[in-house]
Amino acid sequence: MKTLLEAIRPTTFIESEKLKTFTNLDLTIASETFQHTGSFKFRAAYNLALNVPNDEILTASSGNFGQALAYACQLLNKKCTVVMPENSAKVKIEAVVNYGATVDLVDTQTVGRNERVLQLATQIPNVYVASAYDDLLVIEGNSTLGDELSASDFDVIISPVGGGGLASGISKGLCRNGHQAKLIGAEPLLANDAARSLRAGKIVPNETEPQTIADGARTISLGKHNWAILQNGLTEIIEVSDEKIIEATRFLFALANLKCEPTGALSLGAVLENREKFADRKVCLVVSGGNVDTEIYRRILDF
Amino acid sequence: MKTLLEAIRPTTFIESEKLKTFTNLDLTIASETFQHTGSFKFRAAYNLALNVPNDEILTASSGNFGQALAYACQLLNKKCTVVMPENSAKVKIEAVVNYGATVDLVDTQTVGRNERVLQLATQIPNVYVASAYDDLLVIEGNSTLGDELSASDFDVIISPVGGGGLASGISKGLCRNGHQAKLIGAEPLLANDAARSLRAGKIVPNETEPQTIADGARTISLGKHNWAILQNGLTEIIEVSDEKIIEATRFLFALANLKCEPTGALSLGAVLENREKFADRKVCLVVSGGNVDTEIYRRILDF
Repeated sequence: MKTLLEAIRPTTFIESEKLKTFTNLDLTIASETFQHTGSFKFRAAYNLALNVPNDEILTASSGNFGQALAYACQLLNKKCTVVMPENSAKVKIEAVVNYGATVDLVDTQTVGRNERVLQLATQIPNVYVASAYDDLLVIEGNSTLGDELSASDFDVIISPVGGGGLASGISKGLCRNGHQAKLIGAEPLLANDAARSLRAGKIVPNETEPQTIADGARTISLGKHNWAILQNGLTEIIEVSDEKIIEATRFLFALANLKCEPTGALSLGAVLENREKFADRKVCLVVSGGNVDTEIYRRILDF
Repeated sequence: MKTLLEAIRPTTFIESEKLKTFTNLDLTIASETFQHTGSFKFRAAYNLALNVPNDEILTASSGNFGQALAYACQLLNKKCTVVMPENSAKVKIEAVVNYGATVDLVDTQTVGRNERVLQLATQIPNVYVASAYDDLLVIEGNSTLGDELSASDFDVIISPVGGGGLASGISKGLCRNGHQAKLIGAEPLLANDAARSLRAGKIVPNETEPQTIADGARTISLGKHNWAILQNGLTEIIEVSDEKIIEATRFLFALANLKCEPTGALSLGAVLENREKFADRKVCLVVSGGNVDTEIYRRILDF
């Protein structure tokens, strides 16, 4: 059984002269697109599956956490059930199944995903119900990326923010290494609950699930554990329009040869919203993952 | 002034569970898509520009070698002229210009590219005329990738073959490290001069420039220096249909989150042509570069 550090892959640092020339900024990409299962979520999922005593883990996810948890459980010989909307893309359902998990499809018109998780939790004895972000084991898993970033002399690190799992993990890692980089969150303008929370000094949720193209950041609210770290750990949050998210995804493709999902492009999108802010700074753009529907990606390239 | 090893980036090793599961093979990608200027050619170009005594270098290239040489000369404060067809994609011309080189546009209906290079060579005193593949300095530069691959226990290494610069470099690197991996070339079926050369035991050229989608392999013939190494250094050459090249490019996108150019996908294409051959082998797929026109890539994703 591998330890967390043995199981994860180090992040992939990418520097592109073309991207630097185009933006006239000192940018380094830290890409999690080649992490196991294609996103940073594997760091969290493996740490969680490794450390909970339960033999079975249950989560609701139509995205990266479901795949990551399924694969982590496969590696650790634990049972895994992932609740997914029945209208999820077939390729996403297949990915979870191929990693050996049970998929529980719900008609979200009839029953909510979280409601279904609670139903199942009462039916499966001794199951651990995993949140994709609001869990100390998740944050600890993601903090390994903060450790990796601490080895470089970045002035600014920009991280996508959805539920806050990644940013709080990075913050924790930077903090324990005494790294002085400013950590900036990049959040879709259409899903700006974290930015509003930071302004209000308390968690402010979205009223409904936001329909930004950055589907990994369509969370209703920051998690409580994440907020506890982020309220002081983040210097600021930049709200990124969907237009800039799309532009950033395209630039990463054209200038850095990087395929990433729209949520992963949030950090470059934040730079595009306000380039002047980053002049003369050594900036790290965290790209959280690469899993994107081919047809959506084709449309992004065509914008 | 950086040495070659200081100037180049190490290759990016990528393993994808999805790709392994899909092919049922033990595949590792060695991607040069994040090398400086987006392809392995920078290894060759830097070594050449570093070691020739001339202050000015001239080449004909509409593709990766032109960009690589331009950037290498920029880093080494040498002058660089790249002859390109006047109908080259604007983005490719701009890339060379942005790396600080002079672009000489030729109407290839009127004058051949190589003819134009010879014209210019007589006009520019003490210029070095660089071949993208048929040069010992090019091979030596590319051999650094062979050194890197020698650190892993691959049974088989598959490399794209155009002029033979990359494959001969890898062969040289493996050889001097005493590595026993079989080196297999992957060549477009539509541009199979190297495969025919290997069968004939001598260099056999294509009659005209082949129109395969793998534009990095549209060479008329192997270089003489490359052939001297490859005639014994290659175990075999697998001829890959354009259909399989396209399929491989799409699989790398969908299963490994890797954006690559069609020429770079040749090595996976070779596997798709004959999966059984690679069962129970630890296989390394060399992906030579990532620079591809966005519209061509969009069409590939739509196949």
